[in-house]
Amino acid sequence: MAVSYSHCLQSLRVTPRSRLFVSNVDCWRDNRIMKSYSPVSASSKKPHQDLSLEAKVETLLDSVKWDDKGLAVAIAQNVDTGAVLMQGFVNRDALATTISSQKATFYSRSRSKLWTKGETSLNFINIHDIFLDCDRDSIIYLGKPDGPTCHTGSETCYYSSVFDLLKNPQGEESNNLALTTLYSLESTISQRKAEVASPQNGKPSWTKRLLLDDKLLCSKIREEADELCRTHEENEDKSRTASEMADVLYHTMVLLSLKDVKMEEVLQVLRHRFSQSGIEEKKSRATQG
Amino acid sequence: MAVSYSHCLQSLRVTPRSRLFVSNVDCWRDNRIMKSYSPVSASSKKPHQDLSLEAKVETLLDSVKWDDKGLAVAIAQNVDTGAVLMQGFVNRDALATTISSQKATFYSRSRSKLWTKGETSLNFINIHDIFLDCDRDSIIYLGKPDGPTCHTGSETCYYSSVFDLLKNPQGEESNNLALTTLYSLESTISQRKAEVASPQNGKPSWTKRLLLDDKLLCSKIREEADELCRTHEENEDKSRTASEMADVLYHTMVLLSLKDVKMEEVLQVLRHRFSQSGIEEKKSRATQG
Repeated sequence: MAVSYSHCLQSLRVTPRSRLFVSNVDCWRDNRIMKSYSPVSASSKKPHQDLSLEAKVETLLDSVKWDDKGLAVAIAQNVDTGAVLMQGFVNRDALATTISSQKATFYSRSRSKLWTKGETSLNFINIHDIFLDCDRDSIIYLGKPDGPTCHTGSETCYYSSVFDLLKNPQGEESNNLALTTLYSLESTISQRKAEVASPQNGKPSWTKRLLLDDKLLCSKIREEADELCRTHEENEDKSRTASEMADVLYHTMVLLSLKDVKMEEVLQVLRHRFSQSGIEEKKSRATQG
Repeated sequence: MAVSYSHCLQSLRVTPRSRLFVSNVDCWRDNRIMKSYSPVSASSKKPHQDLSLEAKVETLLDSVKWDDKGLAVAIAQNVDTGAVLMQGFVNRDALATTISSQKATFYSRSRSKLWTKGETSLNFINIHDIFLDCDRDSIIYLGKPDGPTCHTGSETCYYSSVFDLLKNPQGEESNNLALTTLYSLESTISQRKAEVASPQNGKPSWTKRLLLDDKLLCSKIREEADELCRTHEENEDKSRTASEMADVLYHTMVLLSLKDVKMEEVLQVLRHRFSQSGIEEKKSRATQG
């Protein structure tokens, strides 16, 4: 076992992300629990505490169902967007190192050694939490990437759609990221914005009208927010609420596109805001002006 | 090869989801392309077209870097929420069957046979698109689950946080789903709602105030939408826009919680809306009343 547990112990100061949203009170309590693991100065800690954590990590590593080569699957996922960034394999050391270093670390089957994503590119994946599946043979590294994850420079390694390839097998790589609904919409709005800026601006669309008319866009956002509220005030059914919320999301995302703000940045704001107490948050807002 | 290509050909009527958002025009064009593959009546199609698709599927299957056991990793992801539902392995037949049937299908290493998720539980994962990674040895099944994916009844198989297990190794399974930021927030709001309804309603919080005061909540939603617009109208910087959008999202999600509407339902509305032409969408709204 190549992993130093003093390093590992330090790392456990991380607040498990799954707790961040549970409650500000929980969050502070958890921070205290995690800090009790953490020998900021090694000499100031009782040795049995370190030993106890070492034993816990070992027990956890024992509980993983390693395959006949001592490996399990590890999937790195963006904590904010949910994008699956890459997939690799881990052995016992790789998982221990990830727990310890909070950087997504894998076992390279071709080079027969550990590798930390980002050790060459500096595009590390900073771990927020790690999850095991029900069978304990598959792992999610929930993390925040410092930059594009794929060695090709793509945000994720998954950019070849099977259906695109079947349509056009001789064509270029499809280069459509495996985007989930919110990010597909964001990508479409962004394409409309590019079309609006080009001389041949393509077919007319509602998105383009909104992109070209600030007054219309802002009046629609205010109107849709009002309509969403009215589904509650006037006790309309759930499907009306879902539909009006869809309108709010779509129109506000057109505004985000105009301002060059990514939904990922908004979610990062939310994550940071909810991981601190309301008091801290207000303080940090006050210092921001 | 156990897969019938006539079945496979039929399946390719599916519009690749990656294209759904590209443009309504693209969408219709793609549908036409896909339909040209599709022998609704086998006799009405020229045989060479079928052969051509068969060859394309074979070429695609050849391009996958199967491991020494003839397997690749397949990750099933919820197309709307981005949640990683489960991970399994596929062989050539399993991937061909998934392309053909549009139900996520895997190869069971323990039972040495194909299995379609949902064949027992009826909780199928309905495929919207399939992605290969840059190395062609890892696959994403982007799909919509009919129900909980895990055999335990959990929405996904990933509910054991490593950091929770290290804190409390003897405790119950942590039962915290690997939630990304938006869904962590949704889960927190939902917990506050449960606390508000219980006799000991826990610590006071802003979320609880909003949950208990419809007038305050709706006035905040209208106010935050207005403030978001003003960041654009008054040319404020990007960080202000991200911050105001975070406020809009948070407050509207409190309203969704009150109305028992999941963000997943909202995203499903958006996905359906953007996969049809504006004219169709307006028509379907009109028929809804």
